[in-house]
Amino acid sequence: MEHITLAHGSGGKLSHQLIESLFCRYLGNPYLEQLNDASILPTSGRIAVSTDSFVISPLFFRGGDIGKLSVCGTVNDLAVSGAIPKFLTLGLILEEGLEMAVLERIIASLAATARQAQVQIVCGDTKVVERGNADKIFINTTGIGYPRTGAEIGPQKVRPGDVILINGTMGDHGIAILSEREGLEFETPVTSDCAPLNSLIDQFFDQGITCMRDPTRGGVGTTLNEIAQQAGVGMILEEEALPLRPEVAGACDMLGLDPLHLANEGKVLVIVAPAAAATVLEKMRRHPLGAQAARIGTVQAEDPGRLLLRTALGAKRLVGMLEGEHLPRIC
Amino acid sequence: MEHITLAHGSGGKLSHQLIESLFCRYLGNPYLEQLNDASILPTSGRIAVSTDSFVISPLFFRGGDIGKLSVCGTVNDLAVSGAIPKFLTLGLILEEGLEMAVLERIIASLAATARQAQVQIVCGDTKVVERGNADKIFINTTGIGYPRTGAEIGPQKVRPGDVILINGTMGDHGIAILSEREGLEFETPVTSDCAPLNSLIDQFFDQGITCMRDPTRGGVGTTLNEIAQQAGVGMILEEEALPLRPEVAGACDMLGLDPLHLANEGKVLVIVAPAAAATVLEKMRRHPLGAQAARIGTVQAEDPGRLLLRTALGAKRLVGMLEGEHLPRIC
Repeated sequence: MEHITLAHGSGGKLSHQLIESLFCRYLGNPYLEQLNDASILPTSGRIAVSTDSFVISPLFFRGGDIGKLSVCGTVNDLAVSGAIPKFLTLGLILEEGLEMAVLERIIASLAATARQAQVQIVCGDTKVVERGNADKIFINTTGIGYPRTGAEIGPQKVRPGDVILINGTMGDHGIAILSEREGLEFETPVTSDCAPLNSLIDQFFDQGITCMRDPTRGGVGTTLNEIAQQAGVGMILEEEALPLRPEVAGACDMLGLDPLHLANEGKVLVIVAPAAAATVLEKMRRHPLGAQAARIGTVQAEDPGRLLLRTALGAKRLVGMLEGEHLPRIC
Repeated sequence: MEHITLAHGSGGKLSHQLIESLFCRYLGNPYLEQLNDASILPTSGRIAVSTDSFVISPLFFRGGDIGKLSVCGTVNDLAVSGAIPKFLTLGLILEEGLEMAVLERIIASLAATARQAQVQIVCGDTKVVERGNADKIFINTTGIGYPRTGAEIGPQKVRPGDVILINGTMGDHGIAILSEREGLEFETPVTSDCAPLNSLIDQFFDQGITCMRDPTRGGVGTTLNEIAQQAGVGMILEEEALPLRPEVAGACDMLGLDPLHLANEGKVLVIVAPAAAATVLEKMRRHPLGAQAARIGTVQAEDPGRLLLRTALGAKRLVGMLEGEHLPRIC
């Protein structure tokens, strides 16, 4: 069949055909192939768990697609929490009429990204809703990882004097999606940074990290505000140190967007004890996903719960959380 | 605010307000309240994992709602696999314009059902799509349970001679939803059987069970076909033994539906060694969710991979898997 029908979500014959001909073919592994109500997985004691739904529009964009994103988003949530991502579950909500070829491209991309990130899809579920009651495809992935032993990180570990690093340029995903959606043309097209970050994080995880987060929806500004509030510390960013592609800076100027509020899908904010900052930065830069890594700011005791930006002229301005929503369905 | 806006899915200020004022208030527990990218959970070695998305229409029905269903569906998948359900993740996809009061009713029901089933919501995610791009609310839950030690069950354990039990009447959920949706009126209205089955299953799990499944989408007929095929055995059901409410039987007659293909949300098919069948049946009947439990059929060596029904007149007919889809969005 060339299109998804309601019967593909019935739990009956067509559901089984879809599972065997598509999902098992691309995603197959012994856990998934049990086709039981639940999959039994090994663990080493504690587990880390994270869930994310993906509703991005358009489905395909420069640098990725909803399948790749569905793996990266959840893998990165686990990796920044200090866990080693191992398993993903896959929940699909399909709109009746979705082209089978589109679904196959998405599942193939999802499978390739899962291989790259070294995670296995261990169980899944597919529902189909009538035409007009969803937008083509929504994906939920829930990830399970193994927490590293002796590696407790988080806002409670952050101290004044800690250094704030990022592994590359800000806002590439946000501008890539916006330009696809609005048909904006740049001399140099912006590519989403969508990528699984676990192999990058593996390089420096044991080096005095106090907290990590991936600045996705809401961007670097919202994410650092969250950490500052949870940690009860202040933070100051150096505007001149913020890595930004000229084309992203240009798009922000033109559209009145703040790059500190733009979504990223392959970036990690790393907060690290000052003595270890140079080592971590060097290790980041040696990895393909950290070539443009930069030291962008410092944790301070002053202004607890607040994020400040020191501008190129030396003035300080407050950076808030994203308010409202300028880019719906960015992930 | 009285309605969900796109900004509630932005990851910014309104997202945080929704999390604090609604999700943490109803669902709060130490895991969830960490509000980290991933939650760290204790395990006892292996884990059982299951995922399910819920797109049921209407959202509220006699006997339940999408919130209750989202807990029961995943709890039951874990319980029938032989695990003790412990944790759920919660992924919400909301349509812009959803009434906040509707969302609150759903979350309150979900929270109450989670308490009843003794599971904790450990992490969540909310996305909002523009009006017209989803139908009010879709929910994904992914469940994590602790497998019971020494309790391997599954199709591979099923043997000819095993007895097939069910804990009550078939098709109540299917007819309850259909009658809400189509405005059908019965003298005795049909109530969905939606319920968490883990406390029922606890009563008899150690009693020679070889396989369990919950016959949801596709019904008893599809589920038994799956087990017969996976186990390489035949199965024969006794039509006169199948528990069926008269009003469900009447609706099936009127609408041309087979109760063996109707969805259930609080039923479990239990396949058990013959020597233990009477004990298990008695234990089921002592539980409120098993009062109408019945012995409905037998596993046989003949006709491997096939499900037969012996009719009241002694004839045998083949029961297939559900084909097509007569009731979309039943869960």
